[in-house]
Amino acid sequence: MHTVVQPREDGTVGDSQGRPPAAPTRVAVAGATGYAGQELLRLLARHPSVTITAATSSGAAAAGARRLPALSRIWNGTITPLDAGTLAREAEIVFLALPDKAAAELAPALADAGVRIIDLSGAFRLRDEAARARWYPETHRVPEGLAYGLTELDRAAIAGARMVANPGCYPTATLLAVAPIAAAGLIAAGADVIVDAKSGVSGAGKTPSERTHFSEVHGSLGAYGVFAHRHGAEIEQGVADAFGGDAAGHSVNFVPHLVPLDRGILATIYFRVAPGTTEDALGSVYERAYADATFVRLVGATLPEIKHVAHTNFCDIGWRVDASGRVVLVSVIDNLVKGASGQAVQNMNVMLGLDETTGLL
Amino acid sequence: MHTVVQPREDGTVGDSQGRPPAAPTRVAVAGATGYAGQELLRLLARHPSVTITAATSSGAAAAGARRLPALSRIWNGTITPLDAGTLAREAEIVFLALPDKAAAELAPALADAGVRIIDLSGAFRLRDEAARARWYPETHRVPEGLAYGLTELDRAAIAGARMVANPGCYPTATLLAVAPIAAAGLIAAGADVIVDAKSGVSGAGKTPSERTHFSEVHGSLGAYGVFAHRHGAEIEQGVADAFGGDAAGHSVNFVPHLVPLDRGILATIYFRVAPGTTEDALGSVYERAYADATFVRLVGATLPEIKHVAHTNFCDIGWRVDASGRVVLVSVIDNLVKGASGQAVQNMNVMLGLDETTGLL
Amino acid sequence: MHTVVQPREDGTVGDSQGRPPAAPTRVAVAGATGYAGQELLRLLARHPSVTITAATSSGAAAAGARRLPALSRIWNGTITPLDAGTLAREAEIVFLALPDKAAAELAPALADAGVRIIDLSGAFRLRDEAARARWYPETHRVPEGLAYGLTELDRAAIAGARMVANPGCYPTATLLAVAPIAAAGLIAAGADVIVDAKSGVSGAGKTPSERTHFSEVHGSLGAYGVFAHRHGAEIEQGVADAFGGDAAGHSVNFVPHLVPLDRGILATIYFRVAPGTTEDALGSVYERAYADATFVRLVGATLPEIKHVAHTNFCDIGWRVDASGRVVLVSVIDNLVKGASGQAVQNMNVMLGLDETTGLL
Amino acid sequence: MHTVVQPREDGTVGDSQGRPPAAPTRVAVAGATGYAGQELLRLLARHPSVTITAATSSGAAAAGARRLPALSRIWNGTITPLDAGTLAREAEIVFLALPDKAAAELAPALADAGVRIIDLSGAFRLRDEAARARWYPETHRVPEGLAYGLTELDRAAIAGARMVANPGCYPTATLLAVAPIAAAGLIAAGADVIVDAKSGVSGAGKTPSERTHFSEVHGSLGAYGVFAHRHGAEIEQGVADAFGGDAAGHSVNFVPHLVPLDRGILATIYFRVAPGTTEDALGSVYERAYADATFVRLVGATLPEIKHVAHTNFCDIGWRVDASGRVVLVSVIDNLVKGASGQAVQNMNVMLGLDETTGLL
Repeated sequence: MHTVVQPREDGTVGDSQGRPPAAPTRVAVAGATGYAGQELLRLLARHPSVTITAATSSGAAAAGARRLPALSRIWNGTITPLDAGTLAREAEIVFLALPDKAAAELAPALADAGVRIIDLSGAFRLRDEAARARWYPETHRVPEGLAYGLTELDRAAIAGARMVANPGCYPTATLLAVAPIAAAGLIAAGADVIVDAKSGVSGAGKTPSERTHFSEVHGSLGAYGVFAHRHGAEIEQGVADAFGGDAAGHSVNFVPHLVPLDRGILATIYFRVAPGTTEDALGSVYERAYADATFVRLVGATLPEIKHVAHTNFCDIGWRVDASGRVVLVSVIDNLVKGASGQAVQNMNVMLGLDETTGLL
Repeated sequence: MHTVVQPREDGTVGDSQGRPPAAPTRVAVAGATGYAGQELLRLLARHPSVTITAATSSGAAAAGARRLPALSRIWNGTITPLDAGTLAREAEIVFLALPDKAAAELAPALADAGVRIIDLSGAFRLRDEAARARWYPETHRVPEGLAYGLTELDRAAIAGARMVANPGCYPTATLLAVAPIAAAGLIAAGADVIVDAKSGVSGAGKTPSERTHFSEVHGSLGAYGVFAHRHGAEIEQGVADAFGGDAAGHSVNFVPHLVPLDRGILATIYFRVAPGTTEDALGSVYERAYADATFVRLVGATLPEIKHVAHTNFCDIGWRVDASGRVVLVSVIDNLVKGASGQAVQNMNVMLGLDETTGLL
Repeated sequence: MHTVVQPREDGTVGDSQGRPPAAPTRVAVAGATGYAGQELLRLLARHPSVTITAATSSGAAAAGARRLPALSRIWNGTITPLDAGTLAREAEIVFLALPDKAAAELAPALADAGVRIIDLSGAFRLRDEAARARWYPETHRVPEGLAYGLTELDRAAIAGARMVANPGCYPTATLLAVAPIAAAGLIAAGADVIVDAKSGVSGAGKTPSERTHFSEVHGSLGAYGVFAHRHGAEIEQGVADAFGGDAAGHSVNFVPHLVPLDRGILATIYFRVAPGTTEDALGSVYERAYADATFVRLVGATLPEIKHVAHTNFCDIGWRVDASGRVVLVSVIDNLVKGASGQAVQNMNVMLGLDETTGLL
Repeated sequence: MHTVVQPREDGTVGDSQGRPPAAPTRVAVAGATGYAGQELLRLLARHPSVTITAATSSGAAAAGARRLPALSRIWNGTITPLDAGTLAREAEIVFLALPDKAAAELAPALADAGVRIIDLSGAFRLRDEAARARWYPETHRVPEGLAYGLTELDRAAIAGARMVANPGCYPTATLLAVAPIAAAGLIAAGADVIVDAKSGVSGAGKTPSERTHFSEVHGSLGAYGVFAHRHGAEIEQGVADAFGGDAAGHSVNFVPHLVPLDRGILATIYFRVAPGTTEDALGSVYERAYADATFVRLVGATLPEIKHVAHTNFCDIGWRVDASGRVVLVSVIDNLVKGASGQAVQNMNVMLGLDETTGLL
């Protein structure tokens, strides 16, 4: 495993074995009882370089640890009511595992108080103002020092950021597969990119609804949000970035599906390369792009399965190309780990100058 | 298949091929958009002797058939708002697939209007007033001519009833296995009867809740309602009936579990028989009890599986006895069919003097 | 429901109520213990115009009805060892629910004996000799009077056929959605057609393998057979047919996925239409194509779900078109019913001149 | 978390932070490609005090790491063919994750070579020779220094053992709940103990069979092994031990069920206590018994769920008692972790004098 000793912001250094420095970083989780919030607590509790100083829930009052029976003896803290002042006082880094609206309101206040923020909501993911106003109208003020945080693609910006917008789960799976190929100029001129994504139900959050009712999902399967999913805009932003800022006429058609499993996303991605581009050529691009990326595993023509990445921070990518230039990419992640909480911790590691894998293997 | 030509109440007869008599019986479903209600519509739509004249939903307004995409071209009617007057006017038999409170209120009014009723709620299942007041406090008035409707055990009473209380899903699976053995005097004196029941999620109804959220059920399993489930009281009533009115010191301990499947109940039942009672002895009792019961299939030591009864009106029963007199009974049903809508149609067939299996095979 | 009284081959007529004519057609099932075979027995047992005269299994010997506990009291016959002579003697129509190789061998012999055949295997689905030699090398002789049997698209040929090659499950879901649009000339010139298909595990058959092990499928998801699935060739044949015999430069890229459910296929299909082609335009094409097709339900922009077609013979089709001419079609079927046994019975109905829906609603 | 600094056998000490001592213990896994074997590799790879020196598979030849794509970058070793000599040479402790017969043959040879052994098979779990001959006839020679290894109940014996028979998954869940209550004398005289256990499919192992076929398990549920499961004998041994060597007339009736989930066991246990024994009394017994047991979490009347222990080494125990002395215990574990590999690592920690929780939280 590659390990890089980097200076932390406070001047201390974390060492290459992941051993804690003298003073652990104080971190807090806002929205600790949702699926992403609980996963964050689980990861942070075993992280050697941090200490959890607060975990809040807007619905918690004094509900206490009984609310999180799965975490008993892993993390023994108490859930407290959401309070911006407490978070700012107790923590150097605050994770926001909140609905978009709540994050849109809380982040500027925390930023003003000098806290570094890792936001798992969508509120700050889109840079373009018009796009953000359309998809996230609840976002009114964007804090300074914000970086988009798809770790493997944005490390430098994350390292220096005051706030990181943690990517959506679908964009994470999609962009890790598409961005290097786009950046290498291998997508055929004008070719459409089609992203057929399949997600487990935990991605829909913990709030009960007819759509998340067991009997509606079990034994079923459906597409949703065609031409109208916010992650589509985020994917388009990422693809344009890979092309150097302009998608150059490439349309991205993103269609998500809900499948009867709890965790995991599999994205199947279709486009054309110039005839003559081989599977090996794609492999070489990926090898270069992810030479230092512990959490991206390249499986080539084998094609990956969700089972292999469930409960891990890995993204497994496979690819096939035929003689006529048709490409099929398959990318899988655990939506709660690499697609949310795991990547958030990975981003924290980068922000703190720690080895990126600390606490995540 | 046994077929019995019996006179219908109106003097006509249904014939042995299940062909409809000249004038089909007019039936209505109150609560048609829940899981049991939709299953009822599916069964009634293909039933040769009835015509669906109304299907209502309290949440429907004019939502119409679009609410039931699964039934399109099977039943082409329209869902209308719940209205007692309409139901009484349009139907000879009304099925109540409603919450307990709504059924407790609607049934007396319909009975007063002369309509025959098959109630799938729990509101009228308990005969004992004190028990009913405890478990179903919303039930204030019990219509005349009420029969409890576990078809195979209560045919005579059902045939002449004005209203049938369709049994609960757990009691159906349990009592079909236990009652004949109890009635035959084979349960050892004073022996406890333990009912460990496992149910799919559709039994919890369509209203979204944390308990029915896909991510809470998938990959999990839990017991609930220990010492405090209303179906426990109903099972005790049925066991006492089998003993001739008094459980004679036998305690019934019923513990339900929620398992990650949509449809189906499996009840594993434990008690002791007098040493010397054999598997064959139990088999003989069952053969006698269910000689005419098309929907009870006896599988003996093979033990039944939910898969074999899913989407059918069958109850499969298996049994094992060891040399020391320990008994294990296993009984399986589809909770939405034999445990609710299928048995309701079966009861309707009995009330109408039709072959019990009409429309159900 | 539309009902058409048509003369049967033997001169009798089935009437519009689906009541059996005097002499039911004698039918047999070869391969009766697999998933498709059992579903066939279930459907044929309740069909009013046929009688099951034989059901065979190569692995059966005298295993008898105990092998099919799910069908007890639905069909009370006995499974017998596979024997071509018996099948030819006992049945007017034989259903082959066999592996490709066994069907390839048995069908010519049965055809020689004058029996009509409905073959659920893939052995005779491809018309082009080179394609068939590549994908089905076990097929050596093709009987006379063979028709490909996607009922809604091939009714006339099926009615007069001596043998019907029942379509694959993926081609059924795909072609019912794509063929009318292709035939209407609405696919943009040269546009690629991408078929991202998701299937339940029963489509993989009953033989245990690592791929069908519960623990490999549950909580997972994966693509397979990229650029190399036999159903891809069958889909290409069907698309070419819709274009009038030549796909005219349209590439079809078919990628199947295995998802953690038992029954059902959902195909998401992507292509471009000429800009200006609207959702309504596609709707009109479908309405015309399926005006008489009871089993194709058009759900438009709502998009269909597997849950609504499970355990039925329906194919539900939805579609979306955006302003730039991108199309998303979604088509769902139950792979064991419309994708196999249900469509086989539907084809039998057409061959016998019965109402197409007899025994299937 | 309690941490105890204890001398290791080699005289070094592991410290309270779980940091590795200078020389890590060399460990090997025989049977590394099964479900338990892979889970072992995952746990051992992140364990701070050991190094994996060999991982073998009888079916492996030189298949290499590609066989374990899920473990890529977690453990980067290679699977080699099973060879007793290599195991004895390379490792101080060998884990046997093998079928019973293979373990029965390999263990004595390794023991003779001076290697310490942790055996996850059933071959050496039963002490009574007659019982062992009946249930494990493949076991011919029992190595010296063998201890049964239900960690929380057998710590002292495990610490000094040369070989540990790791308990079965069902006995682990059952005995952790029953043994303290039995040992405290709270089970009513002569009362039957009924264990209704529900298990995920991974407990059946990786070999494909009809019983583990996805389509047979999904949407289904069944009991198996009634009066005839080897874990029943192991549970009886453990209950007798708790009573001081003799079950004193208490019958234990163990019935396992297969449920549609991958990982996890839930055991519901029924018996009677002397009237007057309260829930609090049971709670006190458990509190005393598990005061030092990090991996046993007592949830009382809340009742535990599999979801809370999946992918962890915890056993959660809940209990209810009613006024008439009826008891319901519910115990849950992850069958692959606490029911197999996790407990094996826990036992290794005890054997090495490490903190019991090292590498497991």
